[in-house]
Amino acid sequence: MINDTICAPATAMGGAIGIIRISGEQAIEIASSIFSSDLTKAEPNTIHYGHIVSSGKAIDEVLVSAFRAPHSYTGEDSVEISCHGSRYILNKVLELLVQQGCRMANPGEFTQRAFLNGKMDLSQAEAVADLIASTNKATHQMALSQLRGGISSELAVLREKLLKLTSLLELELDFSDHEDLEFADRSELLELAKNIDNKVTNLAKSFEVGQALKNGIPVAIVGKTNVGKSTLLNRLLRDDRAIVSDVHGTTRDTIEDTIDINGITFRFIDTAGLRETTDTVEKIGIERTYTAIEKAQIVLWVIDQEPTESELQEILEQIKGKTLVIIQNKVDSEPQNSNKKCSIFNVQCSMFNVQCLKISAKTGEGIEALETAIYEAANIPSITENDVIISSARHYDALTRAHEHLQRVLDGMTMELSSDLLAEDLRLTLDTLSDITGGQISTHEVLGNIFTHFCVGK
Amino acid sequence: MINDTICAPATAMGGAIGIIRISGEQAIEIASSIFSSDLTKAEPNTIHYGHIVSSGKAIDEVLVSAFRAPHSYTGEDSVEISCHGSRYILNKVLELLVQQGCRMANPGEFTQRAFLNGKMDLSQAEAVADLIASTNKATHQMALSQLRGGISSELAVLREKLLKLTSLLELELDFSDHEDLEFADRSELLELAKNIDNKVTNLAKSFEVGQALKNGIPVAIVGKTNVGKSTLLNRLLRDDRAIVSDVHGTTRDTIEDTIDINGITFRFIDTAGLRETTDTVEKIGIERTYTAIEKAQIVLWVIDQEPTESELQEILEQIKGKTLVIIQNKVDSEPQNSNKKCSIFNVQCSMFNVQCLKISAKTGEGIEALETAIYEAANIPSITENDVIISSARHYDALTRAHEHLQRVLDGMTMELSSDLLAEDLRLTLDTLSDITGGQISTHEVLGNIFTHFCVGK
Repeated sequence: MINDTICAPATAMGGAIGIIRISGEQAIEIASSIFSSDLTKAEPNTIHYGHIVSSGKAIDEVLVSAFRAPHSYTGEDSVEISCHGSRYILNKVLELLVQQGCRMANPGEFTQRAFLNGKMDLSQAEAVADLIASTNKATHQMALSQLRGGISSELAVLREKLLKLTSLLELELDFSDHEDLEFADRSELLELAKNIDNKVTNLAKSFEVGQALKNGIPVAIVGKTNVGKSTLLNRLLRDDRAIVSDVHGTTRDTIEDTIDINGITFRFIDTAGLRETTDTVEKIGIERTYTAIEKAQIVLWVIDQEPTESELQEILEQIKGKTLVIIQNKVDSEPQNSNKKCSIFNVQCSMFNVQCLKISAKTGEGIEALETAIYEAANIPSITENDVIISSARHYDALTRAHEHLQRVLDGMTMELSSDLLAEDLRLTLDTLSDITGGQISTHEVLGNIFTHFCVGK
Repeated sequence: MINDTICAPATAMGGAIGIIRISGEQAIEIASSIFSSDLTKAEPNTIHYGHIVSSGKAIDEVLVSAFRAPHSYTGEDSVEISCHGSRYILNKVLELLVQQGCRMANPGEFTQRAFLNGKMDLSQAEAVADLIASTNKATHQMALSQLRGGISSELAVLREKLLKLTSLLELELDFSDHEDLEFADRSELLELAKNIDNKVTNLAKSFEVGQALKNGIPVAIVGKTNVGKSTLLNRLLRDDRAIVSDVHGTTRDTIEDTIDINGITFRFIDTAGLRETTDTVEKIGIERTYTAIEKAQIVLWVIDQEPTESELQEILEQIKGKTLVIIQNKVDSEPQNSNKKCSIFNVQCSMFNVQCLKISAKTGEGIEALETAIYEAANIPSITENDVIISSARHYDALTRAHEHLQRVLDGMTMELSSDLLAEDLRLTLDTLSDITGGQISTHEVLGNIFTHFCVGK
């Protein structure tokens, strides 16, 4: 039953203002029943000053905003009560609302209603959660583009092309006995199908970038004992910590060691281990280091003296598929010969096409250049507002399945199967793409699973 | 300069929604400059859907509420932007506002402007901060009563009486050579002055209750080693911890050990010491215990065997002026003779008019009765909505000074000084009382000091 009226706090506790959201058929009536003046005649999109009242006693001075269906976030009658931000007051108001017939909302239930009432499609609804969780420019841009229908319109184009392909094939079938009619060339249809598959594949491929931006790009710091790995990590974190701790606020306990460079998050993996076991990391070849390298996209190899050519060869083999940045640390302590060393070293590095930098983790020298090098090593394609990047595993899964169906269509076309044999796979392709925007999703179970990851009040 | 336009986040970070507040002459113009549609013609108290835009790029989908002077919280043109609750987005919007000419608001600056623009008096403005900080029924009720003008109207009555007294005394002075005129009886005037002083004194006295409600009532747990003091404390806290940690949320690190009983907060003093040094607390007579008793209003004396009459005498002497509750712990371990012990014990207790309870901190037996006993020991007068309770040290200070001035007036009247000699002290009384509502306060220094304790965005 969708028509019950739900309520929830929509703001975090602890601010000057706390907002309580109400949505549903009785939203305005219920809000009115605990408010000092009549809201039932309230014009849409208007704000009303008054008191929340319980048994004749005022609970708070508030502003109440009234919204009328369908012109609200959820598409239902809605009310927002702007209270003083005391948890006592917010709890009291919620208690009153529940007494008057509201139900406490589940996580994401307001957005779920917005979806069910056709205010947004499913990929846009998912973008709301991503937008709220966005902590930097890249994740913000991805989420906003998705919310504004970036993925939806991309899929609409694909859908149109698929429908065109389907209808052309059906035409062929329906009139196959009319020998005087000319049909689209099969090779042209094959081109169209390939073009659709390319788009689907490219979208699926963007998931890698999307994931990297959303979760942060994993970086491993490796090197022998006492080359200054921990000092380097602390230096990188300390330079950024003021911002990071500010951003993550009270969740600091659980955050990983991350830094933001040019709006992209880099995540240092296994760093606790790194810090605790520095003494036992005798050689680059130990298991923990291998695991770290395995998980990393970028490997920072810290050295304090020139590696031999065979050492360089060895690490290049170990990190294959990853991007290596070699960091010569402690340039502060050996000023007289660091230049000489580095020039030899540079020859080696350029030979293997690897970036190498001289730094002092202790003094901070070269750290800025290192950050630039890390950013470049991430090799993030420059994303414009119009680029569509997939960041949801659900979308990736649907695109991958769509690609598989399309492959069968392509195979069938190559084998010159008749149109009716291709129809089923074409329909499956369409359905699978529709899953992303929610066109085919109706079971509560699937929906519930998607919206569970939202915060309450959204 | 009051007319610049200020902005600040008004909600805590981390919710589904984040609100940014703007107030000042240019509030609507500036908000309009970063909004996707024109707000400059917006009707008062209306809500507008659109996008926050920066250099042609959308930053967020938002709702904007527009308020027109003087019908806003601050009394100025004001705007509230309701964004998705991502810190990245909120920071970005604030950045845009500052670029467009807003200044980041100081703590409490919105409320300060409300005061300066005559929307509320000073005691009401102070109540806003108290209201936001309120965590239980008692503090909520005090703050709300103050916000709704409880103190202000009480003071208005006193002010009227003082003015009446002054004018009657002046009348006496002006027409003192007209022997045919009848004046108010000096004894009647003295009664009036005494009546005023009584009210002032009673208000000042309520500060004790106000402070207790605001800061929590200090409770000390004392007793010999191994009587179960720590277990008892943990039991009391654990029963309440779910609520407390929920209420205090992220500030948990800094909260004291407190429990709420019937809407009143009780604060266990020196409990860290209690927990850490249980082993060394050999006797009730050690210094730390004395200090704890000194600071407490209620002393819980935990015993596990019947105290001798002299022990009872001793502790009664030590805690003079405090309320004692004697707690016989470990009733679970000695079921066969606890009844007998207690009956003797009860005779002693009733002899000295002291509450005594049997509990088991281990099993939780008797804890509910203990909580009731603690609540009763606090002896909080039942407060109705109309009772005015002073909880601000600033108000207490003003009332105390007013009482001193009134004392000089009363002394002067008793000594039958002429009216002109009383006038100065009467004027000082009036001025001092006006300080509470802010009638006489104009220097920025004093105001700044009051509003510094607010949170930003209020």
